[in-house]
Amino acid sequence: MTTTLQDCRALDAQDPLAPLRSHFALPPGVIYLDGNSLGVAPKAAAARVADVVTREWGTDLIKSWNTASWFDLPQRLGNQLAPLIGAGKDEVVCTDSTSINLYKVLSAALNIAREDSPARKRIVSERSNFPTDLYIAEGLCKERGLDLVLVEPEEIAAALTGDVAVLMLTHVNYRTGAMHDMAAITAAAHAQGILCVWDLAHSAGAVPVDLNGAGADFSIGCGYKYLNGGPGAPAFVWVHPRHADRFWQPLSGWWGHAAPFAFTPDYQPAPGITRYLCGTQPIISLSALQCGLDVFTAAQSLGGMAALRAKSLALTDLFIQLVEERCAGHGLGLATPREHAQRGSQVCLTRDEGAGVNGQGSGAYAIVQALIARGVIGDFRKGDGGTGRHKDILRFGFTPLYLGFEDVWNAVEHLRQVLESGEWKKAEFNQTHAVT
Amino acid sequence: MTTTLQDCRALDAQDPLAPLRSHFALPPGVIYLDGNSLGVAPKAAAARVADVVTREWGTDLIKSWNTASWFDLPQRLGNQLAPLIGAGKDEVVCTDSTSINLYKVLSAALNIAREDSPARKRIVSERSNFPTDLYIAEGLCKERGLDLVLVEPEEIAAALTGDVAVLMLTHVNYRTGAMHDMAAITAAAHAQGILCVWDLAHSAGAVPVDLNGAGADFSIGCGYKYLNGGPGAPAFVWVHPRHADRFWQPLSGWWGHAAPFAFTPDYQPAPGITRYLCGTQPIISLSALQCGLDVFTAAQSLGGMAALRAKSLALTDLFIQLVEERCAGHGLGLATPREHAQRGSQVCLTRDEGAGVNGQGSGAYAIVQALIARGVIGDFRKGDGGTGRHKDILRFGFTPLYLGFEDVWNAVEHLRQVLESGEWKKAEFNQTHAVT
Repeated sequence: MTTTLQDCRALDAQDPLAPLRSHFALPPGVIYLDGNSLGVAPKAAAARVADVVTREWGTDLIKSWNTASWFDLPQRLGNQLAPLIGAGKDEVVCTDSTSINLYKVLSAALNIAREDSPARKRIVSERSNFPTDLYIAEGLCKERGLDLVLVEPEEIAAALTGDVAVLMLTHVNYRTGAMHDMAAITAAAHAQGILCVWDLAHSAGAVPVDLNGAGADFSIGCGYKYLNGGPGAPAFVWVHPRHADRFWQPLSGWWGHAAPFAFTPDYQPAPGITRYLCGTQPIISLSALQCGLDVFTAAQSLGGMAALRAKSLALTDLFIQLVEERCAGHGLGLATPREHAQRGSQVCLTRDEGAGVNGQGSGAYAIVQALIARGVIGDFRKGDGGTGRHKDILRFGFTPLYLGFEDVWNAVEHLRQVLESGEWKKAEFNQTHAVT
Repeated sequence: MTTTLQDCRALDAQDPLAPLRSHFALPPGVIYLDGNSLGVAPKAAAARVADVVTREWGTDLIKSWNTASWFDLPQRLGNQLAPLIGAGKDEVVCTDSTSINLYKVLSAALNIAREDSPARKRIVSERSNFPTDLYIAEGLCKERGLDLVLVEPEEIAAALTGDVAVLMLTHVNYRTGAMHDMAAITAAAHAQGILCVWDLAHSAGAVPVDLNGAGADFSIGCGYKYLNGGPGAPAFVWVHPRHADRFWQPLSGWWGHAAPFAFTPDYQPAPGITRYLCGTQPIISLSALQCGLDVFTAAQSLGGMAALRAKSLALTDLFIQLVEERCAGHGLGLATPREHAQRGSQVCLTRDEGAGVNGQGSGAYAIVQALIARGVIGDFRKGDGGTGRHKDILRFGFTPLYLGFEDVWNAVEHLRQVLESGEWKKAEFNQTHAVT
């Protein structure tokens, strides 16, 4: 028996997480399936940011470093985030950008791995890792005369050889939504004396993560996707306590100093994760991130990440099922794994090359634009044009904090209408910017 | 004849820049002399930030990357800032923190200097440079096996030897307000084949700067001091066009890529200053910085930086004169140069060791706290306790955009009363955090 709109409404009616939707300022007329690119604004953000600007900055000015605890904000937010990723207290700070934090931890990981074993001269990563991660690794390798080795997912195990210093992976792939087994891969890497750096950009707040349980070494992640911290929100960085006090990270700025107000001319790194801070942080943006984290704190009493994960899987299962039931025969395929253990919180559909207008291209970009014109916001990721393994992708992120089952029904119904009416062929759509 | 309150009021009445004060949300009852630490909020910031949160993020979500031009914001703000520092169009970006930008330019400067002349193994700086600059340089030197050589200001010329790669200086000293002759020092360094990195943290928006005129090589600076960009506002970075396309800066993230939306696995740096971008920027904080820059744009029609400089010198001259006339006999001295060409936009007073309560310490910290209790906000910088050349300092920044001559009178009158009444001795004051 096929699923109906009434079934979806019934699922919403019994969803214990449904009240969380009220925490978000969802724009009217929109089904937002792009929270894996930029999360929706928590309703609290407007008032919080206004208070930072008018009172903390405007009225209290410099004394807010103390009275508003600006100075401790990276640590406080880090502690609030820690339970979402299996980190302990005082092991995480929210600061800088994901790319910059990656540079810090990759530098530290290389220093540690190569001090222990100088012959290790490689960083291994996935060819389809998020590009900026590869760029940062490429830059570091160039600077230090090391090699960046890129492999396909199925080649990772064989690539973990004795000359590898660091394995750098993104836990959930940005293109496909495929999720790695963090514990198993970390164990395999450690068995070869290799350190693991995990990028949680598409994991934090989306799937349960247990960094300490997996024995991971270093981790970084993004504040503006599933954590709903606002555009370009500061990122986070975690370092396992066994590594945190070894080496300086190279961005040795005043905020990571052991005594930042002593104004000594020489650098002495603070103990623990605090040394992963560098310069003064953008307090207004950092304060908005807190509003995103506050919703997860509120979700604790409703079952926390375990309940969010269960709903996320139910939403993505439903989306896959409805697309296959209701949009068959239009050249769509599934890039995201069906197996729950291998799936993040997004569903990526492929479309075949040659299925576009007049047999040109896949038409995936135009379909995404036609959906956006109807208020169903997903995004498009370009493939390799049939030259390799990557098809064009229609990417849909599912944030269980603010999406319901009827949203999924409606999104698929719009997709069905777009495909069946052929309206995607009628409009000229300009390629737009897109951020992860 | 001594200056009177009436004289100060007359100066305000004829001040052509007086209307600029109305652009700022000055807290009532406060004389704010700490704009060299955190600038006052422009009135426009609250509405601008609210619009970013509620409309650009809240309603338009991901499409604001295009419709709100988030993606070009670092360049647009850089172009708005450029005239204040003698930079050309498309030579500046506003991004990241001052410390991180310093790491980028110092890395690039070292690469360039050492490619041209590999025997150059030193960075020279001032021992009293702002500590975080020294920490960043120390970290880089440690990483690359180079030496950081710290000298006193009068020793700089002699330190410019053939084994030096980079001279790294802060244009206006954070402790004393003393200003270097950028053109003369840059010329002396270049004569020895040494590249110059200038930190404009206490210069941008405070004094006229002409980077291109001075032939400088690299520059960085702060958005939250005289530029009034908000707490921890993103910083800026400038690279002379002759250097911009040489080498990658090491933080090679996606926003500095030549084709950031092509998602290629290999890094290709964008031409020019754009390659000095790294990861996604905190858009809300970046937008607030624009409000600070907008006031300088408004100041153009009133004479711009030349007029602001004239007023700044008049304000600091008046402050020095009134302190010397009205606060004599209390152990105060002057750390800031009297010569205009050597003075930034702050006045730093010293106080002798032993002038504190019961002959302990200088009492400077307690005096600053007593002034703050009266609404006169300056700050304190600790000296070396009589063991070297640095006395304790009472530091007062003068922002001509929002301060008037009567403010100076009133500030000195409060200082006089605090000293003569001895009220600074009566209270217990706790040491507080302070940011540059």
